[in-house]
Amino acid sequence: MDKRSEFSASEREAVYRAIFERRDIRSQFLPVPVPNDVLGRVLNAAHHAPSVGFMQPWDFIVIRDHGVRAAAEACFRQANEAAAQQYEGEKAALYGRLKLEGIRSAPVNICVTCDPERDKGSGLGRQTDPATVLYSTVCAVQNLWLAARAESLGVGWVSILDFDRLREVLEIPQKLTIVAYLCVGYVASFPVEPDLETQGWERRANLEQLIHFDRFGCKNGSALGAMKLDAKDILP
Amino acid sequence: MDKRSEFSASEREAVYRAIFERRDIRSQFLPVPVPNDVLGRVLNAAHHAPSVGFMQPWDFIVIRDHGVRAAAEACFRQANEAAAQQYEGEKAALYGRLKLEGIRSAPVNICVTCDPERDKGSGLGRQTDPATVLYSTVCAVQNLWLAARAESLGVGWVSILDFDRLREVLEIPQKLTIVAYLCVGYVASFPVEPDLETQGWERRANLEQLIHFDRFGCKNGSALGAMKLDAKDILP
Repeated sequence: MDKRSEFSASEREAVYRAIFERRDIRSQFLPVPVPNDVLGRVLNAAHHAPSVGFMQPWDFIVIRDHGVRAAAEACFRQANEAAAQQYEGEKAALYGRLKLEGIRSAPVNICVTCDPERDKGSGLGRQTDPATVLYSTVCAVQNLWLAARAESLGVGWVSILDFDRLREVLEIPQKLTIVAYLCVGYVASFPVEPDLETQGWERRANLEQLIHFDRFGCKNGSALGAMKLDAKDILP
Repeated sequence: MDKRSEFSASEREAVYRAIFERRDIRSQFLPVPVPNDVLGRVLNAAHHAPSVGFMQPWDFIVIRDHGVRAAAEACFRQANEAAAQQYEGEKAALYGRLKLEGIRSAPVNICVTCDPERDKGSGLGRQTDPATVLYSTVCAVQNLWLAARAESLGVGWVSILDFDRLREVLEIPQKLTIVAYLCVGYVASFPVEPDLETQGWERRANLEQLIHFDRFGCKNGSALGAMKLDAKDILP
């Protein structure tokens, strides 16, 4: 390996730190403006995601306007009332206590769309799986999320939305798919564990059970042991 | 901001370095084994991706067996012959020269699947957009890809595949969706630009044209200027 291409131990740790300390932030946004140059960096990170056939099918709508954010929040509220009805008893009570968006408390929202017909890439790689166009756009979201963590910016992905109404609010053309609606802003601190874990909604799965060898369902105890899957082994 | 939560300038640069220097690798894999502890770290990075309702819908099949990789390569070859027929003239000739997979030259392949029915998360967040389950799985792929870059491991995502046949080869249950098939291995160096750019298939889009303000299609020249979108501004 060319030494200039290698990451130092401290660089490698920084990448893992961003990955392990990234959180889905819905509360605790600080009422502090996010400078355009910082937003530019995280959008540039998104733009350097992999894409099928180098298609780069994404667009980014940066939303600061209070009226637009209030309208987007209404798209959440209605959808969330419907979603809440799926739960009963204790789970319903817990659902009602969860904070699932920060649309108005975050100073910036970013809507990420995907253009499945963009002619860049000449169709390479997407004939056998058209969903790869959406997957490319999600890779951009994840790049943005990790860069944001390194910039001390919290990001929360709101998936409970009336998307038809949101499309009208943001004047998004019909041919585009709305992939992600993100709330972005500085936070006082990042929680150690995901909110949904802290609040008792769900626990982290055991990674060992999700790893298979050569074929689905085939296990390899000695290889698994050598993988040292306890995350505490990675960060000092 | 809590100082312990902040990234230092050098940590932030390391994160951007991973993002900007990540490449889709199809050739140049070195015939060097990938240790299980290194694989364990990148799989752990994948497992710490965000997921809708904290559902963690992914599974990972780590493939080193030569016979299984040869069978997977056959799934590529057949699909690629069909895909190649979509092009004519110069584009067809260029397509024929592109290297689009490293299934056998990479010492490890990783197939990432998604279980849309996994009961973790109790359905939270996925009623309004069922595709979020797939999106969570893609976030795991992108985490893996960036961690791999920090480990000097190249990753190539093969999307041209006969997925029905691949499902048989890997004995993947019907209820799971095959999201990504990745070739993983050490490389001598990482190309400065994406292969598809170097080989003249496609060029990087102008990010300025993909950013909108408050509503799709609304531009803001002064905000765009303040974003300093030239990537060279980020890495020293």
